[in-house]
Amino acid sequence: MAEFKAPIRDMQFVLNEVWQAPELWASMENTQEVTPDLVNAILEEGARLCENELEPLNRNGDEEGCHWQDSVVTTPKGFKEAYRLYAENGWTGLGGSPEYGGQGMPKMLTVMFEEMLFSANTSFGLYTTLASGACMALDNHASDALKQRYLPKLYDGTWAGSMCLTEPHCGTDLGIIKTRAEPQDDGSYRLNGTKIFITGGEHDLTENIIHLVLAKLPDAPSGTKGISLFLVPKFMVNDDDSLGARNGVSCGSIEHKMGIKGSATCVMNFDDAVGYLVGEVNRGLQAMFTMMNYERLSVGIQGIGLGEASYQQALAYAKDRLQGRATDGPRQPEKSADPILVHPDVRRMLLTQKAYNEGARAFASYVGMQLDIAKNHSDAATRARADALVALLTPVAKAYFTDRGFDVCVLGQQVFGGHGYIREWGMEQYVRDARITQIYEGTNGIQALDLMGRKVVANGGEWLSIYVEEIEQYLNGLKQPELQPFKEALDSSLSLLRQATEQVVSASRTDLNEIGAAGCDYLNLFGLVSLGYVWTRMAEQAIGKDDTFYRAKLKTARFFIQKLLPETTAYFGKIKAGSAVLMEIDEDEF
Amino acid sequence: MAEFKAPIRDMQFVLNEVWQAPELWASMENTQEVTPDLVNAILEEGARLCENELEPLNRNGDEEGCHWQDSVVTTPKGFKEAYRLYAENGWTGLGGSPEYGGQGMPKMLTVMFEEMLFSANTSFGLYTTLASGACMALDNHASDALKQRYLPKLYDGTWAGSMCLTEPHCGTDLGIIKTRAEPQDDGSYRLNGTKIFITGGEHDLTENIIHLVLAKLPDAPSGTKGISLFLVPKFMVNDDDSLGARNGVSCGSIEHKMGIKGSATCVMNFDDAVGYLVGEVNRGLQAMFTMMNYERLSVGIQGIGLGEASYQQALAYAKDRLQGRATDGPRQPEKSADPILVHPDVRRMLLTQKAYNEGARAFASYVGMQLDIAKNHSDAATRARADALVALLTPVAKAYFTDRGFDVCVLGQQVFGGHGYIREWGMEQYVRDARITQIYEGTNGIQALDLMGRKVVANGGEWLSIYVEEIEQYLNGLKQPELQPFKEALDSSLSLLRQATEQVVSASRTDLNEIGAAGCDYLNLFGLVSLGYVWTRMAEQAIGKDDTFYRAKLKTARFFIQKLLPETTAYFGKIKAGSAVLMEIDEDEF
Repeated sequence: MAEFKAPIRDMQFVLNEVWQAPELWASMENTQEVTPDLVNAILEEGARLCENELEPLNRNGDEEGCHWQDSVVTTPKGFKEAYRLYAENGWTGLGGSPEYGGQGMPKMLTVMFEEMLFSANTSFGLYTTLASGACMALDNHASDALKQRYLPKLYDGTWAGSMCLTEPHCGTDLGIIKTRAEPQDDGSYRLNGTKIFITGGEHDLTENIIHLVLAKLPDAPSGTKGISLFLVPKFMVNDDDSLGARNGVSCGSIEHKMGIKGSATCVMNFDDAVGYLVGEVNRGLQAMFTMMNYERLSVGIQGIGLGEASYQQALAYAKDRLQGRATDGPRQPEKSADPILVHPDVRRMLLTQKAYNEGARAFASYVGMQLDIAKNHSDAATRARADALVALLTPVAKAYFTDRGFDVCVLGQQVFGGHGYIREWGMEQYVRDARITQIYEGTNGIQALDLMGRKVVANGGEWLSIYVEEIEQYLNGLKQPELQPFKEALDSSLSLLRQATEQVVSASRTDLNEIGAAGCDYLNLFGLVSLGYVWTRMAEQAIGKDDTFYRAKLKTARFFIQKLLPETTAYFGKIKAGSAVLMEIDEDEF
Repeated sequence: MAEFKAPIRDMQFVLNEVWQAPELWASMENTQEVTPDLVNAILEEGARLCENELEPLNRNGDEEGCHWQDSVVTTPKGFKEAYRLYAENGWTGLGGSPEYGGQGMPKMLTVMFEEMLFSANTSFGLYTTLASGACMALDNHASDALKQRYLPKLYDGTWAGSMCLTEPHCGTDLGIIKTRAEPQDDGSYRLNGTKIFITGGEHDLTENIIHLVLAKLPDAPSGTKGISLFLVPKFMVNDDDSLGARNGVSCGSIEHKMGIKGSATCVMNFDDAVGYLVGEVNRGLQAMFTMMNYERLSVGIQGIGLGEASYQQALAYAKDRLQGRATDGPRQPEKSADPILVHPDVRRMLLTQKAYNEGARAFASYVGMQLDIAKNHSDAATRARADALVALLTPVAKAYFTDRGFDVCVLGQQVFGGHGYIREWGMEQYVRDARITQIYEGTNGIQALDLMGRKVVANGGEWLSIYVEEIEQYLNGLKQPELQPFKEALDSSLSLLRQATEQVVSASRTDLNEIGAAGCDYLNLFGLVSLGYVWTRMAEQAIGKDDTFYRAKLKTARFFIQKLLPETTAYFGKIKAGSAVLMEIDEDEF
């Protein structure tokens, strides 16, 4: 296998040239210390860790998997030591609140680190990102006492966290959870129930694990309005911060999965487990939503990270593997055949990988930028605008990056031919690992429903208008002749998006199934337009610069516009067909 | 898991109503004994075998896999007994030549049996279909002596066969194989070399294995014109048909793969192995081509079989799993939630599966029909026309069925949400098993090149015209008002195919990369038009019939036309973009 190299140069391009992050950071109070030097140091140190320590554990993590025996989960060989190093070097608190020991780095930057983390070792990365998610929920909703007790040790990696939502009979539909929380006289609660598919619910990486658990109080209203959030530690924590007795929570088994085998996916049993309320009673789902945009963006990043790893391997193989001859004359006449990189269809596969990876990377950073502005900007209207963009774009980032990330991994495997199917080369692991990203943290169908229903139709397209106007203004300002083909292509794709939106907004007034019927096609159309937007911005930065990096950028931008953006027409055609053709078939006719 | 049921009703519909096979069979000398009663008996007996004997071994075949020790390969528990039963019941010789003990069933019918075989247990099915492939090559090219010695025991399943083509340094580019064959005084040859990725190269299912091996004579011309084909038995066969000494061929190891784990994928070492020439010296690749259309169609059928199995499970789950409510009012108010089948996006996924499976099934039978006509029809011009259609449509069937088959398995897994990702439900195995079908027997990129280059451009679109004219004539004859939307949609898709063809034929005169650049998009466009054609034919048979089966057929046809056929516009847009955008990027710019 070729060595994985974090794409630092491209990350710097995205941050510094495309989004001009240094200027933005300098302009906001909480990010003024984020200088280009610091950013470069973080990217370079992060790359070293991911390339040298985490990537080498990736294949074995898959082969060995996690072990469960008598409630104890052992992670694959090397994970424990790597986690220690990871924590000691401060990566567990990278984006955390400085008040409790976090480093407060902006999301625009942490998405870059997360990408290389997931490229190197997705299974390992999940233990740390789930802990970050738990921290965020605590930071936003827990009492000061809980925050002071739990956050510092979560940020410094002494403890880890998990999110316990799903139950055997419900995943998407959390309104029907059965886990119960009984209030106790001392203000704590006792939890009983079973949670499944809990990533990092149990493991041997840290001394303690802090579970955030959704449960219902005995008198709670039915449905999602009766869900509360609780903090349930694996070991009780004494007043002096030392660990006390084992709490009533244990791991009943771990799942045997298609991929991410180094990540323990646990069945968690709560038997009179002591828990502490986080936020308000019956407002647990809202507390979850606070962190959901961050978590969903992170899952999208998994798609990019795996896609980047697959691309690097496929490219190295395509340069190395000799098979067939270039149609316009041998490139290496002295050898038995030419490298397969000469073949147009191999180039199609590699360029598709490259165009999605780099486009998604830039778009992820754009969404990260909106999260940062929403959190840190001094102007309330600017924050509100960014909030709207975050709400609108997060389901797109989650679903589009992971759907395309999976496709990109499949393409990388295809470049290897038969060698991609055997385990030895690692290409099939990327495919298996990527597959889960389309499913968890809300399936991509749910993301599409969220986008189409809550983010577009519910406000009559208001949030969408903010985004569309930004793109239109940008396009109107483009005067360079080299960018006119981009402008034209994006203009017509944007027009399809507008027409599709109008149709769905209008039809959904009388047809309750219109939103669900259009959702996935609409999300794909939206994703293409969004990547078209960031590719045009990247092309703008690249024109006229005579350097390999910029030439490559411009050519890849052209590839995206000419060979991938035309997919918008297909999605538009599908949306136009409406919902009747989906709904008219009776159950017994399937 | 739900029980798998072979879709016999749909198979009968395709054979009897859509293609009116009984009339065709009655009209050709070699197939006159193929009566509807016989066909039904074969489908029903085949279904019983697949459902009751082979499907129950599928999951364990994946979990246990094959074992290799000291050159001996052991198949998963139960495979050996099942193979015996399979052979005893006559399935190994189903399509074989009656002259040597085969049953001579038409391909139109055997594709149906193969589909249920691959639905039930793809790994198991591979052992038998590779043997059939070897038989076909022998039947067409071997001497009478070789045929008499080897075919009867291959047809009755006492022995099995393998195809040894790929070597470590070459798969697609067979012109550079290194395996050598030295002529001996007695007319036999001695073979030396290493073959990899040999499906069923070694196993414990049969007493003997007959390898068909590509190798080069010492004085052979370089490239593909110097390849000869040899029969190399695992055990030598004595004059009285008893087994003699072990031949110099052995299994060096087996691959650890993403899927089809019950199928042994072998490294085969030839050390002075005795071989017998099949066909003419240096014409080995041509001999392989004889059977390639059959084999490639079979691989396409694997895509359909796995897609059908995935669909059946996903449908059962969607009817059973309660989650969320129908947007237009609860369907099961007495329960905690409605079955997920009520949701438009779940229906989109299931209908996509159903439309591809049923469309591909009908199209596979159409291609099988052309193979049967090409082989059995009394009129030479009719045979020649069918030959042209087989050549044209086989790469489409192989690549389009497997690309969509993989997509269909991914969709089925998605319907299960998180439960689709864990091994327990079997949905992820279908995805892993389906993935190989896009790679072996010529990657789908190679199929696209074959279609676009050899089958369309090389003869200036002549073969394509035969096909397009058939569709046009059919469409012109459609007068029923209910079919006009089909006619219009297919007319415009066909027009895109014609325009795309003209562009590529014209551009390829000066641009040597045009064919490779357009290939995959062209194949997808071609596949959509082809399924549009068979779906229109199926709709024609269904209109006006008041019965669940026909109503479902008509609604699924409408779904295909309205929700899937629009993809033609995207592929057309990509083809229009030409090759420059793929070729302009330099090696160091990737």
